[in-house]
Parts: sequence; C-alpha cells; structure tokens
Amino acid sequence: MTMKNDTLTIAVLPGDGIGREVMPACLELVNAATTMAGAPALAFQTHNAGAQYYAESGDALPASTLDACRKSDAILFGAMGWPDIRFPDGTEIIPQLDLRMELGLFAGVRPIRWFPGLPRVLTDPRAEQIDFVLVREQTEGLFYARGRGEIRNDEEAYDTMQITRSGTQRVTEFAFDIARQRKRRGKPGNVTCVDKANVFQSMAFFRKVFDEVADRHSDLTKDHAYVDALALNMVKKPWTFDVLVTENMFGDILSDLAAGLIGGMGMAPSADIGDKHGLFQPAHGTAPDIAGKGCANPSAMFLSAAMMLDWLAAKFGQPTLADAARLMEGAVEHTLSTKLAIPMEYGGNANCAEMTRSVISSLSAAR
Amino acid sequence: MTMKNDTLTIAVLPGDGIGREVMPACLELVNAATTMAGAPALAFQTHNAGAQYYAESGDALPASTLDACRKSDAILFGAMGWPDIRFPDGTEIIPQLDLRMELGLFAGVRPIRWFPGLPRVLTDPRAEQIDFVLVREQTEGLFYARGRGEIRNDEEAYDTMQITRSGTQRVTEFAFDIARQRKRRGKPGNVTCVDKANVFQSMAFFRKVFDEVADRHSDLTKDHAYVDALALNMVKKPWTFDVLVTENMFGDILSDLAAGLIGGMGMAPSADIGDKHGLFQPAHGTAPDIAGKGCANPSAMFLSAAMMLDWLAAKFGQPTLADAARLMEGAVEHTLSTKLAIPMEYGGNANCAEMTRSVISSLSAAR
Ligand SMILES: CC(C)[C@H](C(=O)O)[C@@H](O)C(=O)O
Ligand SMILES: CC(C)[C@H](C(=O)O)[C@@H](O)C(=O)O
Repeated sequence: MTMKNDTLTIAVLPGDGIGREVMPACLELVNAATTMAGAPALAFQTHNAGAQYYAESGDALPASTLDACRKSDAILFGAMGWPDIRFPDGTEIIPQLDLRMELGLFAGVRPIRWFPGLPRVLTDPRAEQIDFVLVREQTEGLFYARGRGEIRNDEEAYDTMQITRSGTQRVTEFAFDIARQRKRRGKPGNVTCVDKANVFQSMAFFRKVFDEVADRHSDLTKDHAYVDALALNMVKKPWTFDVLVTENMFGDILSDLAAGLIGGMGMAPSADIGDKHGLFQPAHGTAPDIAGKGCANPSAMFLSAAMMLDWLAAKFGQPTLADAARLMEGAVEHTLSTKLAIPMEYGGNANCAEMTRSVISSLSAAR
Repeated sequence: MTMKNDTLTIAVLPGDGIGREVMPACLELVNAATTMAGAPALAFQTHNAGAQYYAESGDALPASTLDACRKSDAILFGAMGWPDIRFPDGTEIIPQLDLRMELGLFAGVRPIRWFPGLPRVLTDPRAEQIDFVLVREQTEGLFYARGRGEIRNDEEAYDTMQITRSGTQRVTEFAFDIARQRKRRGKPGNVTCVDKANVFQSMAFFRKVFDEVADRHSDLTKDHAYVDALALNMVKKPWTFDVLVTENMFGDILSDLAAGLIGGMGMAPSADIGDKHGLFQPAHGTAPDIAGKGCANPSAMFLSAAMMLDWLAAKFGQPTLADAARLMEGAVEHTLSTKLAIPMEYGGNANCAEMTRSVISSLSAAR
C-alpha cells in the first residue's frame, strides 16, 4: 500500500457501440459516489481505441492510448469491436486482448453474484445465494496461440496452448488472495482448480503448480474439478462455488456461462489485473443490435467501476474510495431490489439514462 | 443401407462403477422392446475393459475387446474409470478416448431434450421446448494433443490443437445430415458452427471449412457463434438451438453444460459415430459416490441404447429396430411423465431396479 497525494488518473476507453453509452453514465455515477463518500475525485482522461476509431484513423489501439494506459492509475474500459469493421486480413478488432498481453493483466476477475430483484434464471431457490468469483488466467493458455497459429497447405491448422510455472503460480496466488479476503466475510475460503488434467499434459502441469501453491496457504482449502464436470455443476449447484481458477480459454467460456446464471451480461462486471495495472470493464460486448438506442443496461459498467474503486483503495491506501464502491454497489442493489428501475433486458422499461438516474438517486439510500 | 440377415452382434462393455449396474438393466429393456416390436433379437457379447479390469489384469482395453468391437455391429458402453485405479504414470484409465481414436468415432452425438415430468432447471417455461443436438468432433481438435503434450524443464507445458480439412468436413457433413433428418420432423434445419474464429487460426479454419460444406446444403440454414457467447445463450435461450457442431474440447464442455439444463447426466444419452462403427453410451461417468448402491438412474443408458437401435435400423435396413427404439423412448417418457417412477437424482425414490421395472412395464403404453 502506497499513499498517494496527487489526484489519481483514470484512462477512460469508451470504445465502440454501447461502450460509448454506458461509459458517460458510469463517470457520472462515480463522480457522485466519490463526492458523497468524501473520497478524492478522480481525473478521467478519455482516449481513443476500438473498431470505430480504427475506421477513422487506421489505428485500433494508438501508441498514445497504450502509453496513457501505462501511465494511468487505472483503466476504465467500455467495450470494443464491431462486426463490419475488421483488419485487412479479416480478423476482428479486439484491443482488449492486446492490452492484457501488453500490460500483463494476468488475472481476469469475474465476480458472479445474484442481485435481489432480478428474475431468477434457475428454478432452484438456492440460486439466490450465488456468489462466487471466477479467476481466468489471461496471458497464456490457449490464447498463447493468438498470432502464432499455423495453417499448412489449406489442409491442417494448429494452435498451441502454453502453461508456464510462473504464469500458473501468479494467477493461483491471486485466487488464494481473493479466497482469503472472502473468508474474512464469512465465505468458505476455498479455491477450485478447474482443468482437464486427465487428458492434457499442460493441464496436469497447471494442476501440479496449483497444488504447490495451495500447500502454502494452509488457512484455506482447495479442490479440483474437470472443466466439463465444472460446467455441469455450474448449472446444477453454482451456490456451492467460492473461488475458481482456470486456464484462459476455459475461463472465457465459463465466465460467459456464469454470467448467464445471473441473468446475462448486464450484471457481470470484470477486472483484468496485473502486477502494476488494472483494467475494469463490463463483461458484455459492444452489442451492435441495441447500440445507438440508449437502451443498454449500464449496471455491469457501474459494478466494474466499483471494482476499480476497491482496487485503487487498496493500492493507494484510500479507504474512502472503497466507501464509494460500497455506495455504488448498494445503489445498484437498491434500484433493482426496490424495482425503482428495471433494465430492459430484464423485461423492464428503464433505458440507460433512466437506470443511471435511478442508481444515482439511490446512492443516499445505500449510505 | 445394407440388408443383413444374420443376427446383429452387439459388443457390450459395462466397464466400471454404475456402468455395471445400468448395463444389465438396459439389456433387459432392449430385449423386451425388440421382442414387442417384432424386431430381430440382438446377440449381446460382453467384454472386459476399464479400470477395474485393469486392476485385475493389467490391461485396460484388451486387444480381444478392441477386436470384438471392430467385428461387432455396434458397441454398447456403460462407463469407465475409477479414481483410485490409475496407470503407473498417474494418468487416468479412459478407454473411451482410445476407442474413439482407434475406431475413428469422429462424431460425438449428444441429443439434449427435456422430458415432461422432470423438474425444470431453468425458470423460463420455454425450457420445456429444449430439443437440440450437439455434435462434438472427436478425433482431433485439442484432444489431438493427448499423448503428445510436452513439459519443458518443469517450467513450461505445451499442448497443440489440430484441425484438419477432412476432419472438419466429415463432422460438418454429419451435422447437416442430422439437421436434415430433424427438418423432416418440423425442426428448423439449421446448423450452428461453434468456434473461436475471432482469436485462433485453427478455429478460423474450422469455420471456413464449415462454410464450404454449408454451401453444399442449400436446403438447410447455417449460422456461427463464438463458443463463449454460445455458452451464455445455452443458459439464456437453449430452446432456440437446433444442431450445433464444434471442436472436441469445446464439445466436451458444452455437452456437460447442456446435460445440466435438462437436469443432469441422468437423462443424457450419447453416440460416438464413425464411418464404420457406432458406440453408444450414457453421458454420465462411473459415479464412484453412488456406485454399488443400486440407485443409479439407468435412463441415459436406455436412451443411448435407443440411439443404437435407430442407427442399426438405418444401417441395416431394419425398420423394426427403429420401432423398438420408439417403444423404449416412449416408455421412458411415460414412466417420467406419469411419475410411475421418479429417479433418486430427481428427488424420487426409484432405484435402478425400480426404474427398469417401470420402464419395461411402460413399453405397452408406448405402443
Ligand atoms: C473479445 C474476446 C476475444 C474476448 C476473449 O475471448 O477473451 C472476450 O470474450 C472476453 O471474454 O473478454
Ligand atoms: C472421460 C473424459 C476423458 C471424456 C472426454 O473428455 O471426452 C468425457 O468427459 C466425455 O465427454 O466422454
């Protein structure tokens, strides 16, 4: 923990589609919450990146933006990518993957929690107790293959997955840290290693390194699950999960599935954390089908910003930022549980502006 | 279609754990159903394989069993593997993977259908319309890496995924065939290619070959989905799915998830189909936690055997075998929808013997 007296600078990357709609809403809420909590104001600096900017400039992630991200205290990210705008070779514009690699954002943190007031997806009433965190390794695994794949004679294609000891250690340590924080709040304090160690060497190695790390955390418990069985149990009994840690590709699939259990992407925040940097973005994409209509649900963006405030609070020893995060989360909860506003994706009619207004007006109730 | 006059021979591999419990129940039901349908009796020949047999003999998949599988007209498979019984190098005993490779069982067919009478897993009432088929490629993809993985200096591990043109063509053709059969029964006739073409060369290649095949089936439709988005939609709107085709590892994860949507492995049959051979097995494993107690739900085994009868009927031009399959499926449906017997895993108290008795006694109702 470092005390920091000057203003914290946030690199803001709204991106494309609904990213550009939920981001201004989010900044408004963060300003209101930090003010109410008596926390230091944050300096937001908006930067260009994404598919639309690529179409205008030929650059999807300008060096100046990347540089600003490196120098900032945290990165707030909307969503990027657009179906019709691609690189000349036909590949998609997904600067979020570049940022993960460039900034070493090795831990994809995806908290999954049911919010009272939302329609339940699973019939089992215990689904209301869903509260777990998926930690996705984000710098290697199958995604190591990105840009390295090989197609031979238009007949065979190969992609290689990489698991390193250091990569597995750091993400596993990270997962145990989260489990410890959660244990203080009465959670089980368990980390599940999700792999396919019964078939793949790399996954057996992942499990082995996980076990070595787990041995150093005797105050916490661990277990293992094969990814297929875990996917089944995620539908059957997700309320039994605490912290999960897994390989990049598995984590990509499981985090979307997990978001589905709590009603979809509209309520799923995420954080991409590295040793030095933290990037916070809703789990949803740019949603071309609804973009431009002002009807996106900004809740996941709000909750991602709350994760950012918590992270900044811990990093810079500024507890009032964590207070602001609690206010924001509480305001989202209050809005939904009192049905002050129901997002369109959950059958309500609150558009982005109305959701934002309701959440801001709920800040005082969350006090 | 080949007419065949001599008796069809079925290689029966009960395997381990509850495989040994559900298999005899299944053979009893198949005999009763074929008799009632006036279909030719099948000759069942039981063979050794699996973890328990490995513990006794040092051989998990004897050459004689493999040979018998090759010579048989179809293979009926229970479940194999056991936590405590492993090869000397610590790897698990999973002869099902060897059989897929040895016999070229390239298409893993996993029909997912909700059965009236079962508790619904999803709150949305449209979940009662769930009826799709997942086709998992089973001879390459990430599983190509099995036995080929590499660990370097206990620091890095690598596994390589392979996608071939021929492998993708055959499994895609297979998926379009299924879609065509389903279209005759009033289904949409659509095949969804599930991939991660936005990140991986191999997956872009998979999609490209899929598209080439799709172009040859202008009577049917196609679409694409990224595997993460598909996992989300599998929870959000699985009733919109028709036929899905995907890579081996993705298919492994998604088929377990899909089974979860209809209440778990107890109702999920599967078929592993190749150019020459067909292997039919419940999607569940050996269930060490309940094995030996006689309480396993044999329904998935029954439904897998019904898939076998359909496949034999088409292959050998014996429509009465398909009649027997309809009787078996109808009897399972009747048992569940009338609550004649409720499997323990769905909160009832019917053990394996009681379920079997009820299903057999329901054959006449299914007529
Ligand atoms: C956009 C896409 C490449 C990305 C990924 O696969 O990581 C996304 O799905 C995510 O989860 O952040
Ligand atoms: C037993 C295991 C190796 C196997 C697989 O991963 O293919 C199983 O999960 C399956 O789906 O048949």
